[in-house]
Amino acid sequence: MPNPTAAMLVIGDEILSGRTRDANMHHLAQELTRVGIDLREARVVSDDHDAIVAAVRALGTAHDHLFTSGGIGPTHDDITADAVADALGAAIDVRDDARAILAAHYARTGAELNDARLRMARIPQGAVLIDNPISAAPGFSLGNVHVMAGVPTIFEAMLAGLLPTLTGGAPLLSQSLRIDRGEGEIAAPLAGLAADFPDLSVGSYPFQRDGVHGANIVIRGADGARVDAAMGRLAALFPPA
Amino acid sequence: MPNPTAAMLVIGDEILSGRTRDANMHHLAQELTRVGIDLREARVVSDDHDAIVAAVRALGTAHDHLFTSGGIGPTHDDITADAVADALGAAIDVRDDARAILAAHYARTGAELNDARLRMARIPQGAVLIDNPISAAPGFSLGNVHVMAGVPTIFEAMLAGLLPTLTGGAPLLSQSLRIDRGEGEIAAPLAGLAADFPDLSVGSYPFQRDGVHGANIVIRGADGARVDAAMGRLAALFPPA
Repeated sequence: MPNPTAAMLVIGDEILSGRTRDANMHHLAQELTRVGIDLREARVVSDDHDAIVAAVRALGTAHDHLFTSGGIGPTHDDITADAVADALGAAIDVRDDARAILAAHYARTGAELNDARLRMARIPQGAVLIDNPISAAPGFSLGNVHVMAGVPTIFEAMLAGLLPTLTGGAPLLSQSLRIDRGEGEIAAPLAGLAADFPDLSVGSYPFQRDGVHGANIVIRGADGARVDAAMGRLAALFPPA
Repeated sequence: MPNPTAAMLVIGDEILSGRTRDANMHHLAQELTRVGIDLREARVVSDDHDAIVAAVRALGTAHDHLFTSGGIGPTHDDITADAVADALGAAIDVRDDARAILAAHYARTGAELNDARLRMARIPQGAVLIDNPISAAPGFSLGNVHVMAGVPTIFEAMLAGLLPTLTGGAPLLSQSLRIDRGEGEIAAPLAGLAADFPDLSVGSYPFQRDGVHGANIVIRGADGARVDAAMGRLAALFPPA
């Protein structure tokens, strides 16, 4: 059975203006690879209702899972929950279970659960809450759309709680070999190898260091014996100098 | 006149598998902000012909410019040039001007211009070459689609040559203020400020450091006097403790 597929949607003006460098995509990619869910596509959109709605519909329909990051805080530019509800045709309002989580949190910290903070309890009908062990305000899964925070520590904590609840596939195994020759020298035999192992992904990632042109060849696949076989062929094609 | 809009397309399995962390999106975002081109959306797709074609068509149609990175080297997984030609209905083959550039480069370095390397001279009909001062193999602009390398040093060098040839707009100006109070405390007055300055973008980016909850408030816009006015209001709303 093929692995489940996934997409990611990063929401935030600050990424597109260059103010902030996104970190969540790279973390999600590594975690999904580990559990055998294939990340096929990622998108970044601004804090714009229509842009979020369109991306949620397109990516949620095309893949088994859609993971979002960003836009679920208490300020006016946090509009992800409402946009996701709109995209999936779900009603949204302050929900009692989420409000209780926030009330308990702010009672502990001594801060007031004011209107702004209460916005973080706006959860679509039918959604399952995602635990936030860091700052309490929960994420949620609505159908196959998993809505999480943009702050990397919180995104990572939410994902750590969510992933064990999802059904993964065969983890993608990978092996790599560094070859100190230019890609142009090795491209033809490499293409032959890739053609002989159509069930594997054979990637070539060039580098240039201290005047040396080289490439890291990465062979990926779910079947460890096949990856071993391809890696053996690769090593025989390009013995160390 | 509104600023030109742009999108970015990052092409590469290695980003989606988590092997490599993309660096080009952040660099492009900063450079476009500097020259007054609004980056509205970014996507990452794998080395898959159909996925690249679909993304090039969607993003190239929706925006004034589309910048791509990745997939223009000599190996079998470098398929961007052909996919972009296909997406825009252009013929593609080895082009004499690009071949001459490669021939001169390899004559200098003493390497052979073999079939694999010659693939890097495959340039769509009608495209304008983008100079590669690092490793010679050119990028190209086909209509409003600008195709560049994935290796960050080469991407940055190509972009540095390309950007002065594009018409920008008013550079996006930004000022920021760090407020050492939780977002939930400041959200209501902040929403009022954003409503009073609908021509500006008012973003709130929370942080948590040494037990302090705070937020960096970033005000962005093309009109410096308006940004100043909004920043003055913000500072008056939240005087330093």
